[in-house]
Amino acid sequence: MSNFSISSKNKVMRGPKRASYDVDTVYKIIDDHFLCHIGYVYQKEVIVIPTAYGRVEDKIYIHGSLKNRMLLSLLEAKNANLTITHLDGLVLARSAFHHSANYRSATIFGKVKRVDDPALKMKALKCILNHMINGHWDNIRKPNDKELKATLVLEITMEAASAKIRAEGPNDEPQDYNLPIWAGVIPIKQVALPALSDNLINENIRIPEEVNRYINNNR
Amino acid sequence: MSNFSISSKNKVMRGPKRASYDVDTVYKIIDDHFLCHIGYVYQKEVIVIPTAYGRVEDKIYIHGSLKNRMLLSLLEAKNANLTITHLDGLVLARSAFHHSANYRSATIFGKVKRVDDPALKMKALKCILNHMINGHWDNIRKPNDKELKATLVLEITMEAASAKIRAEGPNDEPQDYNLPIWAGVIPIKQVALPALSDNLINENIRIPEEVNRYINNNR
Repeated sequence: MSNFSISSKNKVMRGPKRASYDVDTVYKIIDDHFLCHIGYVYQKEVIVIPTAYGRVEDKIYIHGSLKNRMLLSLLEAKNANLTITHLDGLVLARSAFHHSANYRSATIFGKVKRVDDPALKMKALKCILNHMINGHWDNIRKPNDKELKATLVLEITMEAASAKIRAEGPNDEPQDYNLPIWAGVIPIKQVALPALSDNLINENIRIPEEVNRYINNNR
Repeated sequence: MSNFSISSKNKVMRGPKRASYDVDTVYKIIDDHFLCHIGYVYQKEVIVIPTAYGRVEDKIYIHGSLKNRMLLSLLEAKNANLTITHLDGLVLARSAFHHSANYRSATIFGKVKRVDDPALKMKALKCILNHMINGHWDNIRKPNDKELKATLVLEITMEAASAKIRAEGPNDEPQDYNLPIWAGVIPIKQVALPALSDNLINENIRIPEEVNRYINNNR
């Protein structure tokens, strides 16, 4: 078990009991999703954008068009912060004050580098795609030279990170437990529905095993 | 039908065909969720945090502890940007290059103000709670003076916003349609599971109608 070192940057200030700096805990939250929210500064204002990512060890990969303003701004800033959030439940307490949510989130700080080497770029794209559907890269047409050149890939080396996890029922004030008010949790889950094949698919082409496995694992 | 005015700040640069500045479209994306990602600057670095919100007309309300670093930083900056994202599907194309996601997202820029008047503060907290479960505010114990004083509420007046929506199948290169590769969409949905009552609930207390309605509407 190893931990990210704690600085004023990644130290969880609110609700420190829910915080974790354990590398495996952070990696698990990252690996259970493929969509993060990333912040960048444009004309002195912060802008938050959802984007796909992949992870290999302590590197996070993101990609987009060569003119993508978010990617270019991150390259210029040299640093990036991104957050991954899984919403797991609504926590409905007896009092308004103690309403909350169950969630697992990871906030990551890293150094940003452009990936130029075509072989590394290809690896990064494979990682991003397989993060969405594990193993699906092997089923599809790989990027050709033109597509690879038209894609900007950034590598974010994690320097600091923290996880925050809430996974319990309501915590009401002692005197509120006698009130005739219901309290509990509504579990929330992100699920996959059966795949819809493209209209132009030849009917001899079957849904790949990797796609069916993803759907079965996310019902 | 009214539109947010378009400036360099909120103009969607990548995939402009998927962009909308229509107020009702943006409001619908906001109202279908209660969790956003908000960006702030701390010691010259951007930090992105998930947080609950509510909306009344062109105002977004967020709240937290009096010492919440994100809220205090936004107050100091006077501006805020927040993004709401609904993930609706994985778009699996024949080529890696055309993999995508179906989603509805709204990015909002606004002026930040602290809400001090206790009656307005109470209204804002009601709005945030009812955004989670419509009408549930009337079922629970309202904040008392002490709790109200311990809560910092910010009002973000929307000045610019944009929505981005992708809701279609894969768009492959013309020559790829003949490849023996499956393509399609895996629909993704956020669902509510049956409510789990708090262990300490008296068995005479029933799950409120508003909670059951939420679960039925989000199965």
